[in-house]
Amino acid sequence: MTPPTSSRYDENHYDVIVLGSGPSGQKAAIQSAKLKKRVAIVEPADSLGGVSSNTGTIPSKSFREAVLYLTGFRERSIYGPAYRVKSRITMSDLTFRIGSIVRHENHVIEDQLSRNKVEIIRGRASFADPHTVVIEGRNFVSTKTADHIVIAVGTRPHHPPGFEVDGDKVLDSDDILTMKELPRNIVVVGGGVIGVEYASMFAVLGVEVTLVEQRKELLSFVDREVVEALQYHLRNLDITLRLGEEVSNVSRREDGQVETHLKSGKKIVSEAVLVSAGRQGAVDSLNLELVGLKADKYGRLKVNEQYQTEVPHIYAVGDVIGFPALASTGMSQGRIAASHAFGIPDVALPGPLPYGIWTIPEISLVGETEDSLTQKQIPYETGVARYKEIARGHLIGDELGMLKILFHRETRQLLGVHIIGEGACEIVHVGQSVLSLKGGLDYLVSTVFNYPTLTECYKVAALDGLNKIRA
Amino acid sequence: MTPPTSSRYDENHYDVIVLGSGPSGQKAAIQSAKLKKRVAIVEPADSLGGVSSNTGTIPSKSFREAVLYLTGFRERSIYGPAYRVKSRITMSDLTFRIGSIVRHENHVIEDQLSRNKVEIIRGRASFADPHTVVIEGRNFVSTKTADHIVIAVGTRPHHPPGFEVDGDKVLDSDDILTMKELPRNIVVVGGGVIGVEYASMFAVLGVEVTLVEQRKELLSFVDREVVEALQYHLRNLDITLRLGEEVSNVSRREDGQVETHLKSGKKIVSEAVLVSAGRQGAVDSLNLELVGLKADKYGRLKVNEQYQTEVPHIYAVGDVIGFPALASTGMSQGRIAASHAFGIPDVALPGPLPYGIWTIPEISLVGETEDSLTQKQIPYETGVARYKEIARGHLIGDELGMLKILFHRETRQLLGVHIIGEGACEIVHVGQSVLSLKGGLDYLVSTVFNYPTLTECYKVAALDGLNKIRA
Repeated sequence: MTPPTSSRYDENHYDVIVLGSGPSGQKAAIQSAKLKKRVAIVEPADSLGGVSSNTGTIPSKSFREAVLYLTGFRERSIYGPAYRVKSRITMSDLTFRIGSIVRHENHVIEDQLSRNKVEIIRGRASFADPHTVVIEGRNFVSTKTADHIVIAVGTRPHHPPGFEVDGDKVLDSDDILTMKELPRNIVVVGGGVIGVEYASMFAVLGVEVTLVEQRKELLSFVDREVVEALQYHLRNLDITLRLGEEVSNVSRREDGQVETHLKSGKKIVSEAVLVSAGRQGAVDSLNLELVGLKADKYGRLKVNEQYQTEVPHIYAVGDVIGFPALASTGMSQGRIAASHAFGIPDVALPGPLPYGIWTIPEISLVGETEDSLTQKQIPYETGVARYKEIARGHLIGDELGMLKILFHRETRQLLGVHIIGEGACEIVHVGQSVLSLKGGLDYLVSTVFNYPTLTECYKVAALDGLNKIRA
Repeated sequence: MTPPTSSRYDENHYDVIVLGSGPSGQKAAIQSAKLKKRVAIVEPADSLGGVSSNTGTIPSKSFREAVLYLTGFRERSIYGPAYRVKSRITMSDLTFRIGSIVRHENHVIEDQLSRNKVEIIRGRASFADPHTVVIEGRNFVSTKTADHIVIAVGTRPHHPPGFEVDGDKVLDSDDILTMKELPRNIVVVGGGVIGVEYASMFAVLGVEVTLVEQRKELLSFVDREVVEALQYHLRNLDITLRLGEEVSNVSRREDGQVETHLKSGKKIVSEAVLVSAGRQGAVDSLNLELVGLKADKYGRLKVNEQYQTEVPHIYAVGDVIGFPALASTGMSQGRIAASHAFGIPDVALPGPLPYGIWTIPEISLVGETEDSLTQKQIPYETGVARYKEIARGHLIGDELGMLKILFHRETRQLLGVHIIGEGACEIVHVGQSVLSLKGGLDYLVSTVFNYPTLTECYKVAALDGLNKIRA
């Protein structure tokens, strides 16, 4: 169990082995390779990229673009609510691009890895000891050793008891996009990010949606005013929100439909159920006990700020370490872990992280919330701009959007940005850089933005804020 | 000719009279009103808002949105080049929203002005002396005096000799959107911002476009690499670029078509000609000579950094003072002028101004160009990201977009951002705030952006730049 030294060449020994080729694993591998290390990345699935490229982020964003486009949703306020580009939209209309986008992403990833001389090993890895992994491929079993190991195995959908996920009528988020037909109605169980994103997309498609969530409100980490606006919009899309309700079980009926039973006694009959009850770390087959690691009940690994597990030369990054479980943060984690492993301090820690939620309408936020500032007893004030007040909002027909800034009453420094509406996930980055670079109200008030753009909301919000502190 | 004092109430006397209700005039008036001053704004046109709201910026952006949408241009790379939402697109399809948007903008402006107690006087103003203006309305002539006067009269299209602009076949940019039918072909004379914007929009509509420009390249203030990319895209849209060519005259033919004669001897026959040969200050009827001011040959007024003319209590703002002649900068000028007039120093000077060019694809820039840095002998390096390298570019089907950053080789500070592609006019603001708040390469490299967004281009470009200076 002594770590092999790199000085003696051993073709089965690497400076680092990365388990998993999703965004966090890719960046850990590439960062290591850029430091001239010998790197292998192990991927059990046929295609590279993990959940992000294959069933999650990218496919669902492709689906979302198709939904917005084919339903003419963005143009409804302009051309009328009955307006559609295509009158009968099928699942294959919505998903026909996914295959080509996924293949493209796979090529890009494979190309990046091989350009950086990262060895790609296709097989399922498990630990034999803290420096050794056994890899079972389709036609081989091999044993590899490494000075450092990065666990980037990601997650799989959690299936709570009472749900028999069959991939046909009772689906999880990994198989929702392979449905053959759009259901007439669907029950979405779980009001987290994924559940709410799909609920809004299906509703825009005209599917009758019921969303069931245990908590009294959706998306607990999001600004309350934004969540209320979202809930209002979701109801406007005819989604039935069952908040503070729990599902006891779902059962198939003889006519092929599914019955969802709530603990309150309610029953919902639908053609499909999406079980979106969180995700859990895909650590089952890793033999973590052989290295002295133990995942929590959600399969998640605990790490320190450098993403080291309790075994210092074993790192964990990406969704397997839990919140926020975003591709963007995972990439940053992978980069930081690899740099730390090889003693390179030059990776600056990222500033405040933005969160993007691809509901319809989209949501994005960065920095503090009103709740967090109140808890910290920081005296803040808000400034609000509504899309309908600015020319661009009117031009694109988004009358619902809203941008709120939070700033320090005395220093006027920007503390947080909360946006709901078209373009939210892009324009949040303006606030993010002002936040990171310690700008504030005076910067936003005096700055000239392109006209007519959505970014002007920052100026309108800052002027609103200024009026409040002057009053 | 002694200035009346404000202490004695005189209903014909104001603290400030603003001539013109475009963006710069509005902001001068509102800023003055917020300082509790008595303000009148004089507008000769039926509707408020100037060229920006009525014939220029806003209507052309509405037209552009309709072009993009109805031609399905954004989706062509996804659904194929023959794809169109509407197979036969007419002028009225493209312009039917303009009326309602213009009316909406007018309501917003009128509402903002009256909420701020700005008096709106509808009529044509001319100076009687440096503190007195005579206003001729439809049914009245009145004389008003003011301590300060802000000239925000804007511009009108310049008609060079040899062009008989008839508003029917030979049009200027103020009447292009009132054409009854889309021509089969059009000659655009002048490759400035307006000419290039309309040329690209017509080309996307399938109109055969010839663009004639005296200079060897379009848009001289834009980064050369971006201009070359634009010229490439314009040619891809089947636009014939006649650069370094001058028009001698245009003439109507008996068959209703127009002949454009170039000095080189070439002749172009088309159904319409757009004369886009710059704009000139609308100062003719102001009687400037009575206050000792003189506009240059383009009708432009000279001002200092506080936007004072040579007569210190008379300011000039907006397009009438020339470059950059953008709504966004005009608003800032109006605000600064009014604050200066009333001795308020609290208006911070805006940092680097972004420029937005609404061609298809759109262009935006902020800060220095390679040319300006070379001239100043500042050692810079570039970092480039192409949209096709990032997931969002692939999702929206923009394979052509490009973002380039310029940064200081030694300090690594960001110096300039140049973008061509979807969303350019929005995402440039991220670079603008980094630039203004003195961030640089290290900020962009370490920052986590939402995935998948266009803003990620900044990180990709920064990593590219980092590789160059490490090499």
